[in-house]
Amino acid sequence: MPLSAYWLRDNCPCTECRDPRNGQKLFQITDLPEDLAIGESVETDGRLEVTWSDGHRSRYPLTWLAAPQHGDGRTAEGKRLWVAADFARGIPEAEWGAYLAEPEEQAAVLSAVQRFGFAVLRGVPVVEGQVLKVAESFGYVRETNYGRLFDVRVEADPNNLAFTSAAIAPHTDNPYRDPVPTLQLLHCLRNEAEGGDSGLVDGFRAAAVLREESPEDFALLARTPVPFGFRDRGTELRADRPLIDLDPLGRIREVRFNNRSIGTLRMGAAELDAFYAAYRRFAAVTLRRELQLEFRLGPGDCLIFDNVRLLHARTAFEQGGSRHLQGCYADLDGLASTLAVLHRRAEALDTIAELFAGEGAGEYLGEDVTIAEHMLQAGALAEAAGAPDHLVAAALLHDVGHFNGTGLELMEGRDNRHSDTGADWLAHWFGPEVTEPVRLHVAAKRYLCAVEPGYRERLSEASEYTLKVQGGPMDEARAAAFAAHPGAADAVAVRRWDDQAKDAALQAPPFDHFRPLLARTMR
Amino acid sequence: MPLSAYWLRDNCPCTECRDPRNGQKLFQITDLPEDLAIGESVETDGRLEVTWSDGHRSRYPLTWLAAPQHGDGRTAEGKRLWVAADFARGIPEAEWGAYLAEPEEQAAVLSAVQRFGFAVLRGVPVVEGQVLKVAESFGYVRETNYGRLFDVRVEADPNNLAFTSAAIAPHTDNPYRDPVPTLQLLHCLRNEAEGGDSGLVDGFRAAAVLREESPEDFALLARTPVPFGFRDRGTELRADRPLIDLDPLGRIREVRFNNRSIGTLRMGAAELDAFYAAYRRFAAVTLRRELQLEFRLGPGDCLIFDNVRLLHARTAFEQGGSRHLQGCYADLDGLASTLAVLHRRAEALDTIAELFAGEGAGEYLGEDVTIAEHMLQAGALAEAAGAPDHLVAAALLHDVGHFNGTGLELMEGRDNRHSDTGADWLAHWFGPEVTEPVRLHVAAKRYLCAVEPGYRERLSEASEYTLKVQGGPMDEARAAAFAAHPGAADAVAVRRWDDQAKDAALQAPPFDHFRPLLARTMR
Repeated sequence: MPLSAYWLRDNCPCTECRDPRNGQKLFQITDLPEDLAIGESVETDGRLEVTWSDGHRSRYPLTWLAAPQHGDGRTAEGKRLWVAADFARGIPEAEWGAYLAEPEEQAAVLSAVQRFGFAVLRGVPVVEGQVLKVAESFGYVRETNYGRLFDVRVEADPNNLAFTSAAIAPHTDNPYRDPVPTLQLLHCLRNEAEGGDSGLVDGFRAAAVLREESPEDFALLARTPVPFGFRDRGTELRADRPLIDLDPLGRIREVRFNNRSIGTLRMGAAELDAFYAAYRRFAAVTLRRELQLEFRLGPGDCLIFDNVRLLHARTAFEQGGSRHLQGCYADLDGLASTLAVLHRRAEALDTIAELFAGEGAGEYLGEDVTIAEHMLQAGALAEAAGAPDHLVAAALLHDVGHFNGTGLELMEGRDNRHSDTGADWLAHWFGPEVTEPVRLHVAAKRYLCAVEPGYRERLSEASEYTLKVQGGPMDEARAAAFAAHPGAADAVAVRRWDDQAKDAALQAPPFDHFRPLLARTMR
Repeated sequence: MPLSAYWLRDNCPCTECRDPRNGQKLFQITDLPEDLAIGESVETDGRLEVTWSDGHRSRYPLTWLAAPQHGDGRTAEGKRLWVAADFARGIPEAEWGAYLAEPEEQAAVLSAVQRFGFAVLRGVPVVEGQVLKVAESFGYVRETNYGRLFDVRVEADPNNLAFTSAAIAPHTDNPYRDPVPTLQLLHCLRNEAEGGDSGLVDGFRAAAVLREESPEDFALLARTPVPFGFRDRGTELRADRPLIDLDPLGRIREVRFNNRSIGTLRMGAAELDAFYAAYRRFAAVTLRRELQLEFRLGPGDCLIFDNVRLLHARTAFEQGGSRHLQGCYADLDGLASTLAVLHRRAEALDTIAELFAGEGAGEYLGEDVTIAEHMLQAGALAEAAGAPDHLVAAALLHDVGHFNGTGLELMEGRDNRHSDTGADWLAHWFGPEVTEPVRLHVAAKRYLCAVEPGYRERLSEASEYTLKVQGGPMDEARAAAFAAHPGAADAVAVRRWDDQAKDAALQAPPFDHFRPLLARTMR
């Protein structure tokens, strides 16, 4: 297959070209020579090895070369467009307690917001300000002139129609802001009024319908910046953006729809006529019965929705009726990041589980237990001792550096001692409170041999053998330095469970027993 | 001139169609009849009066009809593109103290950020966290995974190249975020290292140069979404956006340029070759000597810059050197709003000054002083009495409802008593602490006549005359209600200065004397 030289070089994965911690490139595109070319290239051992015209060498996994394109999921192509009937059996929802406790539940909620544009959390404490906690559970609050949060209830002197009891037709919020907040949260504290129901419309679906039924109107709306505006005594916002925003490939990326805040377009009369015809057609589509999803928020419900995709609406309610929501804005990127990390963690747990089940069944340096049994025993001993989560995790995972399947062979130029490689690998998901006891568990053995009479004599045969390879007991100075290390106590604790976890008679729980604890510890 | 019917109707300024407080429309575009047409239209008295086919009537000022298009200033067309030599005589800067105290100074700084993309505040207190105060002086902090603020200094285990002593080539921040933070602030707390200078490049200028020199490369970059990414243990961000983002009219709107975080594009080899050639050409333009503006931030300097336009850079510095900046992100829309409100307030002060100078020279209901002298005297009396700013302002402005030039005739259907109309007009810029004493100053006279023996006898002849028109002294119930009103004391105070401010012998200061006080009170 033909390869683009600059593309290939720009993607060199070596640690000289790319920071292994965050994947950031360590060179500038302009640092590459003008006449860069592939010198030699050889496929071997599942990799393409390239020697470049400037002498640099790169190795690319063939699986990486063949990997498919993944988009960022922000355009209509990455969504599941819907009509109201798609939710005849219920809308995406979850209990607040389960959402907080179970990563899978949280991932399901965030994934629904990403795919469908919304989800409802039930049982969110009916406490003022709680909506901010919901936003902070997956992202960052976007403060605006309305504050960090805003109250939606009838106000004496409202600066916005939202704060009256009037019906509000489907719209997106804040089109006059740039960047517009991409997420909105509405937390219901009270809804005793007659009326005041909520409605949602998939604006991407409405735009897609318009494109199908009237492609010229769609194109006209996508190419016409509209002056959105809002002003009160302390605010004057203005943004010129199209109702339908396309990405450079013509995919629907954002919808802004808010009749209340469209200002004065200035074009010729014929162009204005064409725009208004298209705008009215689009507005009529958003009002179609089949697109209107209606439900009622009760106290404790928190609706999270995509404010650059979904239009939201409210029916009128009786003036005296008691209705109080609190809302805030946030952004999709923070939500997507949290979701990606949840997926990454779930994958990591799967990978670790597979390692325990696969390679873990192998012999452990001649001990009476397999390597998996050894680690599960260590974890169980830590748990039985009432150790905190992070030490149970460290005990359970302390020998992960013995596994070949961790992909550690990719970390070129690093010390491959198993405690270090294991700790480095775990650092992708766990904090230092887990990785450092793992890193130091070999040093802890060398330390205990130096300072604790009788310790060395109790070591297993294999452990006595590896002690020599690892440098033997520490000398006095090293032992003193180790003892002064802030992580010494944790490392010694893990070491003792390690030493005891070689008992063929001991029945350790299976890996799945530790999964929730590991998931908690990853946060 | 031909007019578009729906456009004209959508812009009807009547209070039935539009909330006079915030300009929000009170109807939906779909509420308009299918066959809407202009019935009759007449130009009279500077207005176009339209009777619609559905019976609605609208009146449009001819000046509004003829008003030119104003953009939101966000694309390159609204900016002043620059090369380094444009700042040979200095960069846009201001002292923190002056910026805080003087609205003109603040407006100049914010305007520089809007037009040139940056400004530097000098003498900002060298205190940790101060950068947040700078951001909050004009807008809202955008929190990210780096926190509300981030420290830029050498870190032991950096998750980002910024936190090392390495040189960093010109780039924009956070292209992997969507929406990307549109503003960045960097506040220097310490810079004692050799090196560590700052550089800025106008990315819009660089893009414009590319468009001129190599239009095909420009077009290619504008139509190619690039997968930007960043990940660390708790974060996984991804955004597919072009290096050069155009608005639907083809104007340069945003630039994202960050070699470190460009991920893997997936296209055919020929397309990748073309992209990389264009990308390298654009990168080379950003590195041209004439585009590089260099300066050094010292302690107390705070750089504010447009992160979707300017590229920022840093020279390398000695590893051990002490350099500490604190940064945060914010958004251009909040800044633009603050600037617009500052301009609006300055215009309002100009308008009020003109009213005092023009109509104010007219006779004041037969008193010995002109209306301007009367109001200036009232303001001066309040000031001499040591009244707080808001009461001096209320005394100075209490009769503004007598002026015809306030445009109050536009507020149809409202009570045109001068205290109410004046208060309503002032409410565009002043809070209730100013407007309510103005609103109540006539009621205060009727109240004092009812409850204070001898008060009525001391009224001027004109005031005695208008008392009758205004309803005469209050009855007992009304007087009790007035006394119970939380604003009664302020209104009575203003009233007393009003009553005394009719002395032809008294020399009041000119309007400009009160301008700084009014500017403060408007906040």
